[in-house]
Amino acid sequence: MIFSSKLIEDAVHEFSKLPGIGKKTALRMVLQLMKMDKAEVDVFTRALSKMRNEIQECDVCHNVSDSKVCVICSNTSRNYNQVCVVENIRDVIAIESTQQYNGLYHVLGGILSPLDGIGPDQLNVSTLHDRVKDNAVEELIMALSPTIEGDTTVYYIARQLKDLPVRITTIARGIAFGGELEYADEMTLARSIAKRLPIESYVNMNSK
Amino acid sequence: MIFSSKLIEDAVHEFSKLPGIGKKTALRMVLQLMKMDKAEVDVFTRALSKMRNEIQECDVCHNVSDSKVCVICSNTSRNYNQVCVVENIRDVIAIESTQQYNGLYHVLGGILSPLDGIGPDQLNVSTLHDRVKDNAVEELIMALSPTIEGDTTVYYIARQLKDLPVRITTIARGIAFGGELEYADEMTLARSIAKRLPIESYVNMNSK
Repeated sequence: MIFSSKLIEDAVHEFSKLPGIGKKTALRMVLQLMKMDKAEVDVFTRALSKMRNEIQECDVCHNVSDSKVCVICSNTSRNYNQVCVVENIRDVIAIESTQQYNGLYHVLGGILSPLDGIGPDQLNVSTLHDRVKDNAVEELIMALSPTIEGDTTVYYIARQLKDLPVRITTIARGIAFGGELEYADEMTLARSIAKRLPIESYVNMNSK
Repeated sequence: MIFSSKLIEDAVHEFSKLPGIGKKTALRMVLQLMKMDKAEVDVFTRALSKMRNEIQECDVCHNVSDSKVCVICSNTSRNYNQVCVVENIRDVIAIESTQQYNGLYHVLGGILSPLDGIGPDQLNVSTLHDRVKDNAVEELIMALSPTIEGDTTVYYIARQLKDLPVRITTIARGIAFGGELEYADEMTLARSIAKRLPIESYVNMNSK
């Protein structure tokens, strides 16, 4: 693409650094910014700068945070006995958005993946160990991806924490609500039959 | 979506103001910015602010410009006798990107569309008239959309300029290169047969 304006060219170039944004989409965004009030664009760019400059990692759970301890860890109405272990902050957002979980989180910052060079030292496992020990956490809910790497990580953490009196659970796997049987993969379908539930629990879930 | 960080929530909110950007895409972009160096994010936001604050409209052709007269209008190696009339600046970028046109442009800022409340007064037609008259422009190439509105605009401009000794042409319509006949609409196919070209011009086009 050839632009007759360096200002536009630079702005398009910056936008196309973002994931999944090609030149055409970037141009559409730049033209939209051009149509907006200067004050509005100011609000836009300032929100991004501020986010990048002030965002921190929570000292307790490694979630992103606006302060030293995140709003979840410092919320006294939450259940401090449950800690949900997730791979990254996107998972925290996904679970929080269900509005069904009231415990705390622990963000590992990845899952074990030797091929990608991610070993135990790259993950926030030692802080998890200390947290469980020092705060008498009762239950760790492992909410990692149902992949070989995810399962390996679950087993690794379970082994690291085996001396501590904590119950370790994993989130349920199965056919998604609204999912059609014929499109489910064989592994999921097989496991969902093996781990079938009594009808009462199904009725309870729906009426909840 | 529920975010545990106001900084992230604000940044996502700002991104989702852009066209075609939903909350999930906005979040992906924000997370990408979070991974970038602070200095890089600074370059990003400054390029956008600078663009919005300094962008101007070219006094001559109404294209976007970094100065009072755009780089196309002030490029003395271009052909001042040809002016290509387009609807908006995206069209200028598209034609410039072909690197095959060496004349000037005139950006109308829209096309006649009574239903959308766009009449002659909203378009840059009077400046086009003055430009053609004062600069003895020899050819006006109408490069508007092949729609009823586009055609109406072409006829309107032709009538406004009928006293001036300028040749008015329109870009060729036809089957696109690589386009398959069976998928072309009837109107385009019918016209491309009616306006068929001698084989020599086809050979020339390909060897150019």
